[in-house]
Amino acid sequence: MASHLTYIRDPAAIYAKSFETIRAEADLSRFPKGMDALVIRLIHACGMVDLASDIAFSDGAFEAGQAALASGAPVLVDAEMVAHGIIRRLLPKDNEVICLLNDPRVRPLAGEIGNTRSAAQVDLWGDRLEGAVVAIGNAPTALFRLLELIAAGGRKPAIILGFPVGFVGAAESKESLIGDSSRIPFIAVRGRRGGSAMAAAAVNALAGGLGAND
Amino acid sequence: MASHLTYIRDPAAIYAKSFETIRAEADLSRFPKGMDALVIRLIHACGMVDLASDIAFSDGAFEAGQAALASGAPVLVDAEMVAHGIIRRLLPKDNEVICLLNDPRVRPLAGEIGNTRSAAQVDLWGDRLEGAVVAIGNAPTALFRLLELIAAGGRKPAIILGFPVGFVGAAESKESLIGDSSRIPFIAVRGRRGGSAMAAAAVNALAGGLGAND
Repeated sequence: MASHLTYIRDPAAIYAKSFETIRAEADLSRFPKGMDALVIRLIHACGMVDLASDIAFSDGAFEAGQAALASGAPVLVDAEMVAHGIIRRLLPKDNEVICLLNDPRVRPLAGEIGNTRSAAQVDLWGDRLEGAVVAIGNAPTALFRLLELIAAGGRKPAIILGFPVGFVGAAESKESLIGDSSRIPFIAVRGRRGGSAMAAAAVNALAGGLGAND
Repeated sequence: MASHLTYIRDPAAIYAKSFETIRAEADLSRFPKGMDALVIRLIHACGMVDLASDIAFSDGAFEAGQAALASGAPVLVDAEMVAHGIIRRLLPKDNEVICLLNDPRVRPLAGEIGNTRSAAQVDLWGDRLEGAVVAIGNAPTALFRLLELIAAGGRKPAIILGFPVGFVGAAESKESLIGDSSRIPFIAVRGRRGGSAMAAAAVNALAGGLGAND
Protein backbone atom coordinates (compact mmCIF):
# COMPACT_ATOMS: atom_id res chain seq x y z
CA MET A 1 0.00 0.00 0.00
CA ALA A 2 1.08 3.46 -0.87
CA SER A 3 -0.08 5.54 2.03
CA HIS A 4 3.03 5.05 4.16
CA LEU A 5 4.85 7.90 2.46
CA THR A 6 4.11 11.29 3.91
CA TYR A 7 5.89 14.22 2.31
CA ILE A 8 5.33 17.81 1.30
CA ARG A 9 3.77 17.92 -2.14
CA ASP A 10 3.05 21.61 -2.59
CA PRO A 11 5.81 23.25 -4.66
CA ALA A 12 5.41 26.68 -3.01
CA ALA A 13 5.66 25.09 0.45
CA ILE A 14 8.73 23.12 -0.62
CA TYR A 15 10.46 26.27 -1.83
CA ALA A 16 9.52 28.21 1.27
CA LYS A 17 10.75 25.51 3.64
CA SER A 18 13.96 25.02 1.65
CA PHE A 19 14.85 28.70 1.72
CA GLU A 20 13.89 28.94 5.39
CA THR A 21 16.18 26.02 6.25
CA ILE A 22 19.04 27.57 4.31
CA ARG A 23 18.59 30.95 6.02
CA ALA A 24 18.58 29.20 9.41
CA GLU A 25 21.69 27.11 8.77
CA ALA A 26 23.94 29.09 6.42
CA ASP A 27 26.11 32.03 7.39
CA LEU A 28 24.98 34.70 4.94
CA SER A 29 26.08 37.67 7.03
CA ARG A 30 28.86 38.82 4.70
CA PHE A 31 26.64 39.01 1.62
CA PRO A 32 24.92 42.25 0.58
CA LYS A 33 21.31 42.23 -0.56
CA GLY A 34 20.93 40.46 -3.86
CA MET A 35 24.02 38.35 -3.32
CA ASP A 36 22.35 36.73 -0.33
CA ALA A 37 19.48 35.54 -2.50
CA LEU A 38 21.94 34.30 -5.10
CA VAL A 39 23.89 32.35 -2.49
CA ILE A 40 20.64 30.84 -1.19
CA ARG A 41 19.88 29.65 -4.71
CA LEU A 42 23.36 28.17 -5.04
CA ILE A 43 22.97 26.29 -1.77
CA HIS A 44 19.49 25.19 -2.80
CA ALA A 45 20.96 23.71 -5.99
CA CYS A 46 23.57 21.58 -4.23
CA GLY A 47 22.19 20.84 -0.75
CA MET A 48 25.26 22.14 1.10
CA VAL A 49 24.99 25.15 3.41
CA ASP A 50 28.76 25.38 3.89
CA LEU A 51 29.07 26.39 0.25
CA ALA A 52 28.51 29.96 1.46
CA SER A 53 32.03 30.14 2.85
CA ASP A 54 33.56 29.36 -0.57
CA ILE A 55 31.67 32.03 -2.53
CA ALA A 56 33.82 34.83 -3.91
CA PHE A 57 32.40 37.90 -5.65
CA SER A 58 33.40 41.37 -6.73
CA ASP A 59 31.67 44.48 -5.38
CA GLY A 60 28.52 45.17 -7.33
CA ALA A 61 28.67 41.94 -9.29
CA PHE A 62 25.07 41.04 -8.54
CA GLU A 63 23.84 44.43 -9.76
CA ALA A 64 26.04 44.24 -12.87
CA GLY A 65 24.58 40.87 -13.78
CA GLN A 66 21.05 42.02 -13.10
CA ALA A 67 21.53 45.13 -15.23
CA ALA A 68 22.97 43.10 -18.09
CA LEU A 69 19.95 40.81 -18.14
CA ALA A 70 17.61 43.79 -17.89
CA SER A 71 19.29 45.30 -20.93
CA GLY A 72 18.65 42.14 -22.91
CA ALA A 73 22.18 40.71 -22.83
CA PRO A 74 22.55 37.11 -23.95
CA VAL A 75 23.57 34.35 -21.55
CA LEU A 76 26.59 32.41 -22.81
CA VAL A 77 27.08 29.01 -21.21
CA ASP A 78 29.63 26.22 -21.59
CA ALA A 79 27.33 23.21 -21.29
CA GLU A 80 23.88 22.14 -22.40
CA MET A 81 23.07 21.24 -18.80
CA VAL A 82 23.56 24.87 -17.78
CA ALA A 83 21.32 26.02 -20.62
CA HIS A 84 18.60 23.60 -19.53
CA GLY A 85 18.81 24.67 -15.89
CA ILE A 86 18.01 28.28 -16.69
CA ILE A 87 14.37 29.10 -16.05
CA ARG A 88 13.51 30.93 -19.23
CA ARG A 89 10.41 32.69 -17.98
CA LEU A 90 12.45 34.43 -15.26
CA LEU A 91 14.65 36.14 -17.87
CA PRO A 92 13.51 39.78 -18.05
CA LYS A 93 13.97 40.28 -21.80
CA ASP A 94 13.50 36.78 -23.10
CA ASN A 95 17.31 36.86 -23.23
CA GLU A 96 18.96 34.44 -25.61
CA VAL A 97 20.70 31.48 -23.93
CA ILE A 98 23.58 30.25 -26.07
CA CYS A 99 25.59 27.04 -25.82
CA LEU A 100 27.87 26.33 -28.77
CA LEU A 101 29.49 23.14 -27.45
CA ASN A 102 27.79 21.04 -30.10
CA ASP A 103 28.25 23.53 -32.92
CA PRO A 104 29.84 21.67 -35.85
CA ARG A 105 32.68 24.21 -36.03
CA VAL A 106 33.82 23.39 -32.50
CA ARG A 107 35.56 20.05 -32.95
CA PRO A 108 37.87 21.13 -35.79
CA LEU A 109 38.57 24.40 -33.99
CA ALA A 110 39.51 22.50 -30.82
CA GLY A 111 42.08 20.56 -32.86
CA GLU A 112 43.38 23.78 -34.37
CA ILE A 113 43.89 25.64 -31.08
CA GLY A 114 44.96 22.51 -29.20
CA ASN A 115 42.31 22.74 -26.53
CA THR A 116 39.07 21.10 -25.44
CA ARG A 117 35.77 21.53 -27.26
CA SER A 118 34.54 23.40 -24.19
CA ALA A 119 37.32 25.95 -24.64
CA ALA A 120 37.03 26.14 -28.42
CA GLN A 121 33.38 27.16 -28.24
CA VAL A 122 34.44 30.30 -26.36
CA ASP A 123 36.28 31.43 -29.50
CA LEU A 124 32.96 31.30 -31.34
CA TRP A 125 31.13 33.61 -28.94
CA GLY A 126 32.67 36.52 -30.85
CA ASP A 127 30.77 39.80 -30.71
CA ARG A 128 28.09 38.31 -28.50
CA LEU A 129 30.55 38.25 -25.62
CA GLU A 130 30.52 42.03 -25.25
CA GLY A 131 28.27 42.85 -22.28
CA ALA A 132 27.01 39.26 -21.98
CA VAL A 133 26.32 37.19 -18.89
CA VAL A 134 28.76 34.27 -19.02
CA ALA A 135 27.97 31.20 -16.93
CA ILE A 136 30.60 28.45 -16.78
CA GLY A 137 29.26 25.36 -15.04
CA ASN A 138 31.43 22.58 -16.27
CA ALA A 139 34.82 23.08 -17.91
CA PRO A 140 37.82 24.81 -16.34
CA THR A 141 39.30 25.05 -19.85
CA ALA A 142 36.37 27.21 -20.96
CA LEU A 143 37.02 29.66 -18.13
CA PHE A 144 40.77 29.65 -18.75
CA ARG A 145 40.18 30.25 -22.46
CA LEU A 146 37.81 33.13 -21.76
CA LEU A 147 40.36 34.80 -19.48
CA GLU A 148 43.04 34.30 -22.15
CA LEU A 149 40.95 35.91 -24.86
CA ILE A 150 40.04 38.85 -22.62
CA ALA A 151 43.69 39.31 -21.60
CA ALA A 152 44.61 39.35 -25.28
CA GLY A 153 42.29 42.32 -25.81
CA GLY A 154 39.09 40.44 -26.62
CA ARG A 155 35.56 41.54 -25.88
CA LYS A 156 34.42 41.80 -22.27
CA PRO A 157 31.31 40.29 -20.72
CA ALA A 158 29.24 42.17 -18.13
CA ILE A 159 29.80 39.40 -15.60
CA ILE A 160 31.43 36.01 -15.32
CA LEU A 161 29.71 33.36 -13.21
CA GLY A 162 32.51 30.91 -12.49
CA PHE A 163 31.38 27.43 -11.48
CA PRO A 164 33.59 24.90 -13.25
CA VAL A 165 33.85 21.70 -11.23
CA GLY A 166 36.37 18.98 -10.63
CA PHE A 167 39.93 17.94 -10.06
CA VAL A 168 41.96 19.40 -12.90
CA GLY A 169 41.99 23.15 -13.25
CA ALA A 170 38.66 23.93 -11.60
CA ALA A 171 40.09 25.56 -8.48
CA GLU A 172 42.94 27.13 -10.46
CA SER A 173 40.72 28.62 -13.18
CA LYS A 174 38.46 30.21 -10.56
CA GLU A 175 41.45 31.67 -8.69
CA SER A 176 42.59 33.12 -12.02
CA LEU A 177 39.15 34.67 -12.45
CA ILE A 178 39.13 36.07 -8.91
CA GLY A 179 42.59 37.58 -9.32
CA ASP A 180 42.16 38.67 -12.92
CA SER A 181 43.50 42.11 -13.75
CA SER A 182 40.71 42.89 -16.21
CA ARG A 183 38.38 43.54 -13.24
CA ILE A 184 35.33 42.05 -14.88
CA PRO A 185 32.56 41.56 -12.32
CA PHE A 186 32.45 37.95 -11.14
CA ILE A 187 30.75 35.51 -8.82
CA ALA A 188 32.44 32.15 -8.25
CA VAL A 189 32.84 29.25 -5.89
CA ARG A 190 36.41 28.57 -4.79
CA GLY A 191 37.81 25.07 -4.94
CA ARG A 192 36.71 21.89 -6.66
CA ARG A 193 33.00 22.30 -6.14
CA GLY A 194 30.80 23.79 -8.83
CA GLY A 195 28.67 22.44 -11.63
CA SER A 196 25.96 23.24 -14.09
CA ALA A 197 23.22 23.38 -11.45
CA MET A 198 25.11 26.11 -9.57
CA ALA A 199 25.86 28.06 -12.76
CA ALA A 200 22.19 27.92 -13.76
CA ALA A 201 21.10 28.83 -10.23
CA ALA A 202 23.29 31.93 -10.35
CA VAL A 203 21.67 33.03 -13.60
CA ASN A 204 18.22 32.31 -12.18
CA ALA A 205 19.00 34.42 -9.11
CA LEU A 206 20.17 37.34 -11.26
CA ALA A 207 16.99 37.00 -13.28
CA GLY A 208 14.43 36.34 -10.59
CA GLY A 209 15.83 36.45 -7.07
CA LEU A 210 14.07 33.82 -4.99
CA GLY A 211 10.98 33.52 -7.17
CA ALA A 212 9.71 29.94 -7.19
CA ASN A 213 10.31 27.69 -10.18
CA ASP A 214 7.25 25.54 -10.56
CA MET B 1 49.02 39.26 -22.66
CA ALA B 2 47.52 35.81 -22.64
CA SER B 3 50.47 33.52 -22.07
CA HIS B 4 50.35 33.67 -18.27
CA LEU B 5 47.79 30.90 -18.04
CA THR B 6 49.23 27.43 -18.09
CA TYR B 7 46.76 24.58 -17.86
CA ILE B 8 46.10 21.13 -19.23
CA ARG B 9 44.24 21.43 -22.52
CA ASP B 10 44.12 17.83 -23.70
CA PRO B 11 40.75 16.26 -22.84
CA ALA B 12 42.15 12.72 -22.53
CA ALA B 13 44.88 13.96 -20.16
CA ILE B 14 42.30 15.88 -18.11
CA TYR B 15 40.15 12.77 -17.72
CA ALA B 16 43.11 10.58 -16.84
CA LYS B 17 44.43 12.99 -14.22
CA SER B 18 40.95 13.51 -12.75
CA PHE B 19 40.29 9.81 -12.34
CA GLU B 20 43.81 9.25 -10.98
CA THR B 21 43.29 11.97 -8.36
CA ILE B 22 39.96 10.49 -7.33
CA ARG B 23 41.43 6.99 -7.01
CA ALA B 24 44.26 8.40 -4.87
CA GLU B 25 42.01 10.40 -2.55
CA ALA B 26 38.70 8.54 -2.29
CA ASP B 27 38.06 5.43 -0.26
CA LEU B 28 36.61 3.07 -2.85
CA SER B 29 37.50 -0.13 -1.01
CA ARG B 30 33.94 -1.20 -0.22
CA PHE B 31 32.75 -1.00 -3.84
CA PRO B 32 32.78 -4.03 -6.12
CA LYS B 33 34.00 -3.74 -9.70
CA GLY B 34 31.65 -1.65 -11.77
CA MET B 35 30.36 0.23 -8.77
CA ASP B 36 33.84 1.65 -8.22
CA ALA B 37 33.84 3.17 -11.69
CA LEU B 38 30.36 4.54 -11.11
CA VAL B 39 31.40 6.14 -7.84
CA ILE B 40 34.43 7.67 -9.56
CA ARG B 41 32.11 9.23 -12.12
CA LEU B 42 29.84 10.56 -9.37
CA ILE B 43 32.81 12.14 -7.61
CA HIS B 44 34.08 13.51 -10.91
CA ALA B 45 30.72 15.19 -11.46
CA CYS B 46 30.70 17.02 -8.12
CA GLY B 47 34.36 17.49 -7.14
CA MET B 48 33.96 15.88 -3.70
CA VAL B 49 35.84 12.70 -2.84
CA ASP B 50 33.99 12.25 0.46
CA LEU B 51 30.82 11.58 -1.52
CA ALA B 52 31.96 7.93 -1.59
CA SER B 53 30.99 7.46 2.04
CA ASP B 54 27.37 8.47 1.35
CA ILE B 55 26.78 6.10 -1.55
CA ALA B 56 24.27 3.34 -0.90
CA PHE B 57 23.55 0.52 -3.33
CA SER B 58 21.93 -2.87 -3.48
CA ASP B 59 23.88 -6.01 -4.38
CA GLY B 60 24.14 -6.38 -8.12
CA ALA B 61 22.63 -2.97 -8.85
CA PHE B 62 25.40 -1.99 -11.24
CA GLU B 63 24.98 -5.18 -13.27
CA ALA B 64 21.19 -4.81 -13.28
CA GLY B 65 21.48 -1.31 -14.69
CA GLN B 66 24.05 -2.34 -17.24
CA ALA B 67 21.90 -5.26 -18.40
CA ALA B 68 18.84 -3.05 -18.70
CA LEU B 69 20.69 -0.62 -20.95
CA ALA B 70 22.14 -3.50 -22.98
CA SER B 71 18.63 -4.81 -23.55
CA GLY B 72 17.56 -1.43 -24.93
CA ALA B 73 15.62 -0.19 -21.90
CA PRO B 74 14.67 3.48 -21.91
CA VAL B 75 16.12 5.94 -19.43
CA LEU B 76 13.42 7.85 -17.55
CA VAL B 77 14.58 11.07 -15.91
CA ASP B 78 12.90 13.75 -13.81
CA ALA B 79 14.66 16.83 -15.21
CA GLU B 80 15.85 18.17 -18.55
CA MET B 81 19.28 18.75 -17.01
CA VAL B 82 19.62 15.03 -16.36
CA ALA B 83 18.61 14.25 -19.94
CA HIS B 84 21.21 16.68 -21.26
CA GLY B 85 23.97 15.27 -19.06
CA ILE B 86 23.61 11.79 -20.51
CA ILE B 87 26.24 11.08 -23.16
CA ARG B 88 24.08 9.60 -25.87
CA ARG B 89 26.84 7.87 -27.81
CA LEU B 90 27.75 5.79 -24.73
CA LEU B 91 24.26 4.25 -24.64
CA PRO B 92 24.61 0.70 -26.00
CA LYS B 93 21.30 0.53 -27.88
CA ASP B 94 20.68 4.16 -28.69
CA ASN B 95 18.34 3.91 -25.69
CA GLU B 96 15.56 6.45 -25.53
CA VAL B 97 16.02 9.16 -22.86
CA ILE B 98 12.67 10.45 -21.69
CA CYS B 99 11.83 13.53 -19.62
CA LEU B 100 8.15 14.41 -19.45
CA LEU B 101 8.40 17.38 -17.08
CA ASN B 102 7.37 19.79 -19.80
CA ASP B 103 4.71 17.56 -21.31
CA PRO B 104 1.49 19.61 -21.56
CA ARG B 105 -0.44 16.96 -19.61
CA VAL B 106 1.77 17.39 -16.55
CA ARG B 107 0.54 20.67 -15.11
CA PRO B 108 -3.17 19.75 -15.00
CA LEU B 109 -2.28 16.30 -13.69
CA ALA B 110 -0.19 17.84 -10.91
CA GLY B 111 -3.25 19.83 -9.85
CA GLU B 112 -5.40 16.72 -9.97
CA ILE B 113 -3.14 14.54 -7.82
CA GLY B 114 -2.08 17.43 -5.57
CA ASN B 115 1.61 17.07 -6.15
CA THR B 116 4.48 18.76 -8.00
CA ARG B 117 4.93 18.66 -11.76
CA SER B 118 8.04 16.57 -11.13
CA ALA B 119 5.93 13.95 -9.38
CA ALA B 120 3.03 14.13 -11.84
CA GLN B 121 5.28 13.27 -14.77
CA VAL B 122 6.02 9.92 -13.10
CA ASP B 123 2.35 8.99 -13.56
CA LEU B 124 2.83 9.45 -17.31
CA TRP B 125 5.74 7.02 -17.58
CA GLY B 126 3.15 4.22 -17.74
CA ASP B 127 4.22 1.03 -19.49
CA ARG B 128 7.66 2.44 -20.21
CA LEU B 129 8.53 2.12 -16.54
CA GLU B 130 8.68 -1.67 -16.70
CA GLY B 131 12.36 -2.66 -16.85
CA ALA B 132 13.51 0.93 -17.36
CA VAL B 133 16.50 2.75 -15.91
CA VAL B 134 15.10 5.55 -13.76
CA ALA B 135 17.40 8.45 -12.88
CA ILE B 136 16.11 11.04 -10.42
CA GLY B 137 18.45 14.02 -10.20
CA ASN B 138 16.29 16.80 -8.91
CA ALA B 139 12.97 16.29 -7.22
CA PRO B 140 12.37 14.29 -4.03
CA THR B 141 8.67 14.31 -4.90
CA ALA B 142 9.40 12.41 -8.12
CA LEU B 143 11.18 9.67 -6.17
CA PHE B 144 8.46 9.57 -3.50
CA ARG B 145 5.79 9.34 -6.19
CA LEU B 146 7.61 6.53 -7.97
CA LEU B 147 7.86 4.53 -4.74
CA GLU B 148 4.16 5.14 -4.09
CA LEU B 149 3.13 3.89 -7.50
CA ILE B 150 5.33 0.81 -7.20
CA ALA B 151 4.00 0.08 -3.70
CA ALA B 152 0.48 0.35 -5.11
CA GLY B 153 1.24 -2.46 -7.56
CA GLY B 154 2.58 -0.37 -10.43
CA ARG B 155 5.23 -1.36 -12.96
CA LYS B 156 8.78 -1.91 -11.79
CA PRO B 157 11.93 -0.41 -13.26
CA ALA B 158 15.16 -2.41 -13.59
CA ILE B 159 17.01 0.08 -11.40
CA ILE B 160 16.42 3.35 -9.60
CA LEU B 161 19.28 5.86 -9.51
CA GLY B 162 18.30 8.10 -6.60
CA PHE B 163 19.96 11.51 -6.60
CA PRO B 164 17.34 14.09 -5.63
CA VAL B 165 18.99 17.06 -3.94
CA GLY B 166 18.10 19.60 -1.30
CA PHE B 167 16.52 20.41 1.99
CA VAL B 168 12.97 19.14 1.83
CA GLY B 169 12.49 15.43 1.29
CA ALA B 170 15.74 14.66 -0.49
CA ALA B 171 17.33 12.69 2.34
CA GLU B 172 13.98 11.18 3.33
CA SER B 173 13.03 10.06 -0.19
CA LYS B 174 16.38 8.34 -0.61
CA GLU B 175 16.07 6.57 2.74
CA SER B 176 12.63 5.39 1.58
CA LEU B 177 14.24 4.04 -1.58
CA ILE B 178 17.05 2.32 0.33
CA GLY B 179 14.60 0.70 2.74
CA ASP B 180 11.89 -0.03 0.19
CA SER B 181 10.27 -3.42 0.47
CA SER B 182 9.90 -3.84 -3.29
CA ARG B 183 13.63 -4.67 -3.48
CA ILE B 184 14.18 -2.88 -6.77
CA PRO B 185 17.91 -2.50 -7.45
CA PHE B 186 19.10 0.97 -6.52
CA ILE B 187 22.09 3.26 -6.30
CA ALA B 188 21.71 6.46 -4.30
CA VAL B 189 23.52 9.11 -2.32
CA ARG B 190 22.32 9.52 1.24
CA GLY B 191 21.55 12.94 2.62
CA ARG B 192 20.96 16.31 1.02
CA ARG B 193 23.55 16.05 -1.71
CA GLY B 194 22.62 14.92 -5.19
CA GLY B 195 21.68 16.63 -8.41
CA SER B 196 21.27 16.20 -12.11
CA ALA B 197 25.01 15.93 -12.79
CA MET B 198 25.27 12.95 -10.43
CA ALA B 199 22.17 11.28 -11.87
CA ALA B 200 23.53 11.68 -15.40
CA ALA B 201 26.98 10.50 -14.30
CA ALA B 202 25.43 7.33 -12.88
CA VAL B 203 23.70 6.61 -16.19
CA ASN B 204 26.93 7.34 -18.08
CA ALA B 205 28.84 4.94 -15.84
CA LEU B 206 26.28 2.18 -16.42
CA ALA B 207 26.54 2.85 -20.14
CA GLY B 208 30.25 3.35 -20.57
CA GLY B 209 32.26 2.86 -17.40
CA LEU B 210 35.08 5.38 -17.36
CA GLY B 211 35.16 6.02 -21.12
CA ALA B 212 36.04 9.66 -21.82
CA ASN B 213 33.40 12.14 -22.86
CA ASP B 214 35.01 14.46 -25.34
